[in-house]
Amino acid sequence: MLEAIQTPADLDGLSCEQLDDLAAEMRQAICDQVSKTGGHLAPNLGVVELSIALHRVFDFGHDRLLFDVGHQCYPHKLLTGRYGKLGKLRSRGGMAGFPEPTESDYDLFAVGHAGTAVSTAVGMARGDDLLAGGVGRSDRRTVALVGDASIVNGVALEGLNNAGTLKRQFLVILNDNGMSIAKPQGGMATYFDRIRVSSTFSEIKRAGKKMLDKLPGGSVVEEIYHRGSDMLRTAIASDHLFEHFGFLCIGPIDGHDLPTLIDMLEEVRDIDRPVLLHVKTVKGKGFEFSADDPTKFHSPKPFVVNGCRAELKSSGRSFTSAFADALTDQMKLDDKIVAITAAMPDGTGLSRVARDFPDRVLDTGICESHAMDMAAGMAKAGAKPFFAVYSTFAQRALDQVFQEVSLQNLPVRICMDRAGFVGGDGAVHHGFMDVSMFSALPNLVQLAAIDEPNLRAALGFMARHDASASAIRYPRDNVAELPVQDDPPPFQLGKANLIRAARSTKPDLAILGYGVLAYSALEVAQRLDAEGIDVAVYDARFAKPVDGELIERLIAAGTPILTLEDHATTGGFGHAVLAEAHARSLPTHCVQILGMPQRWIAQDSRPNQLAEVGLDVDAITSAARNYLADCAPCNGRSHVLMDETVPVGKG
Amino acid sequence: MLEAIQTPADLDGLSCEQLDDLAAEMRQAICDQVSKTGGHLAPNLGVVELSIALHRVFDFGHDRLLFDVGHQCYPHKLLTGRYGKLGKLRSRGGMAGFPEPTESDYDLFAVGHAGTAVSTAVGMARGDDLLAGGVGRSDRRTVALVGDASIVNGVALEGLNNAGTLKRQFLVILNDNGMSIAKPQGGMATYFDRIRVSSTFSEIKRAGKKMLDKLPGGSVVEEIYHRGSDMLRTAIASDHLFEHFGFLCIGPIDGHDLPTLIDMLEEVRDIDRPVLLHVKTVKGKGFEFSADDPTKFHSPKPFVVNGCRAELKSSGRSFTSAFADALTDQMKLDDKIVAITAAMPDGTGLSRVARDFPDRVLDTGICESHAMDMAAGMAKAGAKPFFAVYSTFAQRALDQVFQEVSLQNLPVRICMDRAGFVGGDGAVHHGFMDVSMFSALPNLVQLAAIDEPNLRAALGFMARHDASASAIRYPRDNVAELPVQDDPPPFQLGKANLIRAARSTKPDLAILGYGVLAYSALEVAQRLDAEGIDVAVYDARFAKPVDGELIERLIAAGTPILTLEDHATTGGFGHAVLAEAHARSLPTHCVQILGMPQRWIAQDSRPNQLAEVGLDVDAITSAARNYLADCAPCNGRSHVLMDETVPVGKG
Repeated sequence: MLEAIQTPADLDGLSCEQLDDLAAEMRQAICDQVSKTGGHLAPNLGVVELSIALHRVFDFGHDRLLFDVGHQCYPHKLLTGRYGKLGKLRSRGGMAGFPEPTESDYDLFAVGHAGTAVSTAVGMARGDDLLAGGVGRSDRRTVALVGDASIVNGVALEGLNNAGTLKRQFLVILNDNGMSIAKPQGGMATYFDRIRVSSTFSEIKRAGKKMLDKLPGGSVVEEIYHRGSDMLRTAIASDHLFEHFGFLCIGPIDGHDLPTLIDMLEEVRDIDRPVLLHVKTVKGKGFEFSADDPTKFHSPKPFVVNGCRAELKSSGRSFTSAFADALTDQMKLDDKIVAITAAMPDGTGLSRVARDFPDRVLDTGICESHAMDMAAGMAKAGAKPFFAVYSTFAQRALDQVFQEVSLQNLPVRICMDRAGFVGGDGAVHHGFMDVSMFSALPNLVQLAAIDEPNLRAALGFMARHDASASAIRYPRDNVAELPVQDDPPPFQLGKANLIRAARSTKPDLAILGYGVLAYSALEVAQRLDAEGIDVAVYDARFAKPVDGELIERLIAAGTPILTLEDHATTGGFGHAVLAEAHARSLPTHCVQILGMPQRWIAQDSRPNQLAEVGLDVDAITSAARNYLADCAPCNGRSHVLMDETVPVGKG
Repeated sequence: MLEAIQTPADLDGLSCEQLDDLAAEMRQAICDQVSKTGGHLAPNLGVVELSIALHRVFDFGHDRLLFDVGHQCYPHKLLTGRYGKLGKLRSRGGMAGFPEPTESDYDLFAVGHAGTAVSTAVGMARGDDLLAGGVGRSDRRTVALVGDASIVNGVALEGLNNAGTLKRQFLVILNDNGMSIAKPQGGMATYFDRIRVSSTFSEIKRAGKKMLDKLPGGSVVEEIYHRGSDMLRTAIASDHLFEHFGFLCIGPIDGHDLPTLIDMLEEVRDIDRPVLLHVKTVKGKGFEFSADDPTKFHSPKPFVVNGCRAELKSSGRSFTSAFADALTDQMKLDDKIVAITAAMPDGTGLSRVARDFPDRVLDTGICESHAMDMAAGMAKAGAKPFFAVYSTFAQRALDQVFQEVSLQNLPVRICMDRAGFVGGDGAVHHGFMDVSMFSALPNLVQLAAIDEPNLRAALGFMARHDASASAIRYPRDNVAELPVQDDPPPFQLGKANLIRAARSTKPDLAILGYGVLAYSALEVAQRLDAEGIDVAVYDARFAKPVDGELIERLIAAGTPILTLEDHATTGGFGHAVLAEAHARSLPTHCVQILGMPQRWIAQDSRPNQLAEVGLDVDAITSAARNYLADCAPCNGRSHVLMDETVPVGKG
């Protein structure tokens, strides 16, 4: 049946029974695909009926549908002509794992960071009205779909606060599964828990009771109440949190009961005031294994289903696991250390740390700004907070790093996982600006780790470094099975680490790699060596401060330098090297910078993404070769690359 | 009496009458001083009694007091030994206008950006407990003082959500004056309005009534209710918004009634659960002119008091006013343009724009992240949003620029006032990273304006530039009375503007200034010219993209380049020039970079701050001279600076 759905209009003729069958088919298709490629499972299983009902009641070719976070968009994509792309989920050219305007006009915003849907929806509603000639003039309806975990995010609450003032149709659907990515946190989660155990609208209707014991304040609500149908009146919630934000609150209703969903959406569709429809859903609905452990199956790797059980396929040792174990060891040494996550205990490895230190791992929910400020407060009190956060989400706490961390000079430790390309999650999750965005801030050390022993050493350095804040980056990747050194030298502030000595005292090239690409540089060096090019490789370790002495020594000796990083070249490590050389009045033509270009890179495997921008071993090797060919004459050295067996020159 | 208060302990012996007298004395001292130097007036007048009561009841040498925003800290400073510094308010070495830990241990965090106090307070409470051996073990109490405008900020709401889970003493004081900086915005403001018109505790007590018609949920509250005094029971608020966040909510109480304030604070001081005490205050209390127009007297320039009136002293035409008029003119030409502010209608000039276009100026309240997302939504709908925001506050929307603006490539226009040093507001408000933090983002043009005609031209360019987002910066300063050109050439993407031609075809120096320092460069050039040095001056106009052709032409001709900007050198315009030269394989030793150093600069006048870091005309001139002296030999040109009347060389 799914194949027959080319556009949402194809839903129109279907009976409720057929829609239920369609829902089951969609669930199976999603589960089958995610088991093969990995992806977001449980969130999508939870919103199948809701997505069907939304497309049945609204016309999102004209009306506006905004997803929050967006990892719950698969059912929506299946209903908007993208079933054919499901087979290549999260791969290049296939279906992106998040809303993607380049795929379909039904996707308005490419998203992946939480909390933004209400805010952009407010903007679209106001923009539509402006272009239509005034408030309430546009006939485009606006719907924002937000989870109970996202709604506690600052920008979501700011958006709701503003939305509450709208004098036009505006529907927020609170998709309340009580789960977040892990267990939701905070006072509001407790509040939702209370609501959640209350009866749903259908149960109340069946019992012939009314939920409304007190009419929520305001004449508008009264008016809606009095002109509304019995159904609507019965479902209006009194004393709901978001009533205080200016919303008419309705529900909770059962998010898997299609007839009720459709009726209720039709009921609220044209109310010309902000409405919040509270929908209870079950994350992972439809399969026992995912409904029972929606955290594990939130965004699983490929897995094998065995009856009602499922097992994740093994995928090696990740930087995340290495980080968790290294941090655990530091916490054993220093009882002032405390670990913080913003709703990513699994993603950052802190759930592993919490096994040993349940009281010293704190989860703030999806509140990165707050988490950074909380860390600063803890540091001010004398504790040693390690905030483990994805590089891309650290962007949400820039202003807190500015004011609460840097300005106060508090030694908050920022541990940035998922730095560089992230693979299947695609553009919204790449971590390509964690160096540049912090670069102008005083009192912050920036470092990176290339393998597990170095990550351990780096965390040791950070634990001892009380003089300022520090921020480390490491990728969404496995650690090298064969580390560079089993026991690398301790980190020293601003000092690089030689990880491959040149054969001669006057090497042909020095590669300075920041982060894991320094590891790739070892293979590059080996290949170049086979071509007679003598290469030294340094693990730069620090982007701030960079190793100025090393740079000076290399340039003074006339050694060409190649910098390497999986960060934007603009404002990244390479530019720091360039600026350092320039500040030391050294010539800079013998510095070559390789990094990420200034464009958005779509979902694909991480190796493919690196290759796409010339950061795989092949491309780096050939870039190094070309550079040396160009560079030799201008640096005044008699570097000879004339062995005829070695291809030299551009291209 | 004020002189006798050296520490808060000196309050202990004073009677309530004496405390009232002290309050009056403090108000007069603050008003007198602000009338001379400018500063925050109305916010401080509103919290005099509250500050006295807090210091009377708590011991903030041991307990923790966190200010939100912090512009309401003057009374606190007067009570903590800093009366003697009031005479140099907001000047170097004098009393900072915001909390400042380097002044006193009573100031825990240097702040100025809103919404952070609850979050840092949560961190300090958790940190204190951790170091004391467990939850609730610390005997340090925690108090956060937050205004009703700040509390709608995302990080404040995130903080409250987390705070609601604390199982220990934690007091949030909601200083509700119903005013924000301008009129507060959003659904929650409407909610506060409703509460505010309700009777205060004292009135209710006088009438012998009880506010509590329904016990707020939860056994903890019940327990506190039953073991509490009559006074506490009477004041517990039912159905308060923040009850849903997990707080016991109390009030509203009258924030100018000292005995009640003191009694109530003593009452709630040791409740071992999160408590929100809702206090109603009058912004500008004590003087008719400030209480009547607290927006105008929120942070006035120097003023003259005439009986019960006061007049601001005139201070010339600011960039802010120039921006407002220029934007108004653009809005007359294009009815898709809409202007957005986050609670700074006066500060950004939008209140002036709103005179002509009341329906096309939107105020989101202190919600910068939301405002940026709303702008993106409006752009997606086809409108042309101009978000006017201080440079330092734009930091709060970085992630929104990343996801909602850059990733979608939506032409949001970001207009950053207060770029560079801000004078008396000091470190927390400097705008020194608006170039670097955005630098790695695709789809964003960065530009700057040096005077009013150029600001007009720049806004015209931005209004027409639909291909990507754009971000302009301009300082907290007056526009030059004598503009460079009355009718400057139109802005062309990535093209600099020659504003002072050299005498010869081979000038001795080219100065590339980004922003207002290009204007200073004209005077530098004049001085150097008098010394026989031939200087061309360019208004760079664009930091992204920089004018690569110009850079290439200059370097190819062997013309030394001096870049100039009131932005951090790290990641700023100068580094963009350096990177461009390097990317074009040009030598870089003939580029000299002047900008802001990587350290925090305290409150002072803007000219003094520029001088402090070597960015005044004198220092730039001498830097240029020294640079040329050093540079001449290495660039291989026979540049002669040997006239004996001209001091040459280092130092």
